[in-house]
Amino acid sequence: MAYELYYWDGLQGRGEFVRLALEDAAAEYVDVARESKKSGYGMDAMMKVLNSKSEPHIPFAPPFLKDGKLIVPHVANILLYLGPKLHLAPKDEGLRYVAHGLQLTIADFITEVHDTHHPLATDLYYEDQKDAAKIRTQSFLDKRVPKFMSYFERVLKQNPQGDTHMIGDKATYVDLSVFQIVDGLHYAFPRAMNKFGKLYPRVAALHDAVLQRPNIAAYVDSERRIPFNESGIFRHYPELDQDA
Amino acid sequence: MAYELYYWDGLQGRGEFVRLALEDAAAEYVDVARESKKSGYGMDAMMKVLNSKSEPHIPFAPPFLKDGKLIVPHVANILLYLGPKLHLAPKDEGLRYVAHGLQLTIADFITEVHDTHHPLATDLYYEDQKDAAKIRTQSFLDKRVPKFMSYFERVLKQNPQGDTHMIGDKATYVDLSVFQIVDGLHYAFPRAMNKFGKLYPRVAALHDAVLQRPNIAAYVDSERRIPFNESGIFRHYPELDQDA
Repeated sequence: MAYELYYWDGLQGRGEFVRLALEDAAAEYVDVARESKKSGYGMDAMMKVLNSKSEPHIPFAPPFLKDGKLIVPHVANILLYLGPKLHLAPKDEGLRYVAHGLQLTIADFITEVHDTHHPLATDLYYEDQKDAAKIRTQSFLDKRVPKFMSYFERVLKQNPQGDTHMIGDKATYVDLSVFQIVDGLHYAFPRAMNKFGKLYPRVAALHDAVLQRPNIAAYVDSERRIPFNESGIFRHYPELDQDA
Repeated sequence: MAYELYYWDGLQGRGEFVRLALEDAAAEYVDVARESKKSGYGMDAMMKVLNSKSEPHIPFAPPFLKDGKLIVPHVANILLYLGPKLHLAPKDEGLRYVAHGLQLTIADFITEVHDTHHPLATDLYYEDQKDAAKIRTQSFLDKRVPKFMSYFERVLKQNPQGDTHMIGDKATYVDLSVFQIVDGLHYAFPRAMNKFGKLYPRVAALHDAVLQRPNIAAYVDSERRIPFNESGIFRHYPELDQDA
């Protein structure tokens, strides 16, 4: 049976990290909210799960995955669950906790990316928190991006099996997620990322290597890949960008 | 061999969610940074892992757990790992992903609690972002606390095995973490939490029930439980509190 991915339509957002893993593995999946109501899917199907008054394991928010009756919420949790099934996780059980730890650091980074344009309140428009967004983004670009990216660079450098994968000697879902955050950073902050490849050569090389994977290359060129836009997590607001 | 918990000394912070599970299970553990340098532990031992140039699986930040050679970072990941060993996780493997999903929602909530006093930048003092903190906290108390807490209330209500546990019919680490966030909210925002028990009776009852667990009661009364303070995540700044 196909996996069912539940996530908002119209943006890459957090759902994209799951899509990349499913696409890389050529897994059968339904992107539920993007399907028609006629087919039994669509936004209504997603809201039905979220608002259910009887489902015992209701998720707090999208994305969540349905595999048969099991509902698995949160990106990192979904990838923890799917990783072994898609052959995108380490074989060693201990290392799966290490991979999951890396993914949770990526999750924290994504939250910080979101907060660059929404530092004061999720329910306020960006336009109503622009000044605060400028301060938060400056701190993000000056302090937080270097902290996270030099950490990922170090993880690659200290990988005893070579610096081309975040963990072990094979591609995992963590590599795919690193691709996505590097891609997103370049979309959102092209000026600030100008020297990215020089500062973080291994992370940049990993991004490029993931993009060479046949299924990822095909996906990125397809209509299934929604372009980055200002409804997503990585948003390009020129006034927030700054020179590297 | 005793588990080694690595976390900053002097605050409950994120480490506390792990301590509660270890304490409830009466597990043998070393709170590394709080031990003396003479014993081979202390802050130096923690910094040594964080700054290691050879360790293949360096954590991004505390807390992390060492079990023999394995390093498991991130609260939710540590609890995922420890849960079955401490008999604080569901027996069913599928339900472990559900429990982990609940814990990741709690992790997101904790990040939002932190951002009430640090909305603009982690590296700025609270005093330098007080006005932004007021706006963020108001949105947090008016919108986010109700969103999260009514979700947790619903999870309890819809638990087919009864509304006294977040999942299944036995205590899990998720219950212990719910205790901690309710406790923290009452410390940080006593005025705003004034009607908490009326609004979220099941969540409030779960908090009280956890506090009745013998090992938790003993721990909370011990010197091992660091009191809430303004270095932690839950901080009591009276100017941020507001009437319910």
